Amino acid sequence: MLKVNEYFDGQVKSIGFETQGEHTSVGVMVPGEYTFGTAAPERMTVVKGALTVKLPGHIDWETYTAGDDFEVPGDSSFLVIVTDTTAYLCDYL
Amino acid sequence: MLKVNEYFDGQVKSIGFETQGEHTSVGVMVPGEYTFGTAAPERMTVVKGALTVKLPGHIDWETYTAGDDFEVPGDSSFLVIVTDTTAYLCDYL
Repeated sequence: MLKVNEYFDGQVKSIGFETQGEHTSVGVMVPGEYTFGTAAPERMTVVKGALTVKLPGHIDWETYTAGDDFEVPGDSSFLVIVTDTTAYLCDYL
Repeated sequence: MLKVNEYFDGQVKSIGFETQGEHTSVGVMVPGEYTFGTAAPERMTVVKGALTVKLPGHIDWETYTAGDDFEVPGDSSFLVIVTDTTAYLCDYL
């Protein structure tokens, strides 16, 4: 079952799915600044574009481009700045 | 603007977007057999999972896994067999 989700008034949309027992989603973010909360830990992979991210407990912002990934602990949140519309994969760990 | 599309009674869903002047979509296919028609030429990249594909004019089926990509000419069609729910990126060339 493919579940479409919308966040931030449609500025971020994703399709949630399960494959090989893993909970995953692919999504797209339009330019903007976002704060995402996490329940489970996540691994975010940039599919196309770039995400500039400030991870919990980090001072510096880091930019991730296509093929790069980063992990976020559960029960936390991370900040994202998007300059060009960007596609991502989110694996719930 | 992020545009959600549904095909094959919701078995395939995608989010269409434009970035850096390129028309793109990310999507997910649940297990099944599909025939996709193309208007413009496309480059399909497997993001997670695998697609077994028969390209126009090809005799053999080829399986593409995460990170692999294949191109499809415009005004043609290609066949896809999906065994595990699979996420993909489609760049319209």
